[in-house]
Amino acid sequence: MLSPQAVHNGEAPSPHHRILTPHFHSTVTLRKLRRFNSLILVFRLAAFAFSLASSVFMVTNSRGSDSPRWFDFDAFRFVFAANAIVALYSFFEMGVSVWEISTGGTLFPEILQVWFDFGHDQVFAYLLLSADSAGTALAKTLKGTDTCKASNSFCVQSDISVALGFAGFLFLGFSSLLSGFRVVCYIINGSRFHL
Amino acid sequence: MLSPQAVHNGEAPSPHHRILTPHFHSTVTLRKLRRFNSLILVFRLAAFAFSLASSVFMVTNSRGSDSPRWFDFDAFRFVFAANAIVALYSFFEMGVSVWEISTGGTLFPEILQVWFDFGHDQVFAYLLLSADSAGTALAKTLKGTDTCKASNSFCVQSDISVALGFAGFLFLGFSSLLSGFRVVCYIINGSRFHL
Repeated sequence: MLSPQAVHNGEAPSPHHRILTPHFHSTVTLRKLRRFNSLILVFRLAAFAFSLASSVFMVTNSRGSDSPRWFDFDAFRFVFAANAIVALYSFFEMGVSVWEISTGGTLFPEILQVWFDFGHDQVFAYLLLSADSAGTALAKTLKGTDTCKASNSFCVQSDISVALGFAGFLFLGFSSLLSGFRVVCYIINGSRFHL
Repeated sequence: MLSPQAVHNGEAPSPHHRILTPHFHSTVTLRKLRRFNSLILVFRLAAFAFSLASSVFMVTNSRGSDSPRWFDFDAFRFVFAANAIVALYSFFEMGVSVWEISTGGTLFPEILQVWFDFGHDQVFAYLLLSADSAGTALAKTLKGTDTCKASNSFCVQSDISVALGFAGFLFLGFSSLLSGFRVVCYIINGSRFHL
């Protein structure tokens, strides 16, 4: 069958094809693309905000030397590390997204950019879910023990941190859907635009 | 630009296009497709075997009423449930895969089949990773407690069950990559075949 590559890299594109290449978008198309990019930016911003809040809640969860400290628990260290990584990554991706909205081009070459975004979204979504699940299991186990009886605020703050991490995961998952969509668009059209 | 749908659903396909539709694969192509389907079957089989083993290891992890039982721990119940679901799903998908290798067609309509496979692979991979992470965190927390001192074999068996679950997740992830590839092929070519 005719592959789309053949259509796009064909030696003699029809005039119809040439007119509709991504460089000649109409005003309506441009507005839709801008809306799509803004949606990605909103998801990135939400993922950044939640994962940053989660890591801050976790890292401030120590109250002197006689009460429990977050870094004594492996799972809480994992929650902090995963959320910090996702916060950094989302911050970087927000920059990339702002760059794309303002200049219309991608920061890296286009093929690298779409695969970079999608690949990292996927891996970090798995990482964050894994960390938050581990944190949930630990937080639930701690509930009945002396740790929570001695310092209830420690347990409450860990719970909040883990919950914020799950919210971060949700928005990272949404970003991953959109960046996956862009990868498919790139494979089909030879461009990250869906229109 | 010319969408691939236009190429495939065009009113007047060229003779070149007609010759190359999926119904007229050469022997070499058919052999490659069979190899691809066999690879999927192997991954499904491995995911099934590991997740079944994991759930069996977990469900048999009770030694009388005076020692700890797996269903007293939320995270271990989650590990069992997630692995049992993945084992059932992988068993079903093995059937689908065998059906496809033997008859050459899909069980459901093609578009439904590729999206069903990919969607479920993704969701169940997240589910299984979440369960196994929670199980790991609980198993690690139990290590130093009286539960493991009283009944060490209980803790060892839980560890084995969680480890088997991670192996199942690995193979489910590989299946997910291949089924994602088939979705992209379907979107591009209007057929799940990549050749």
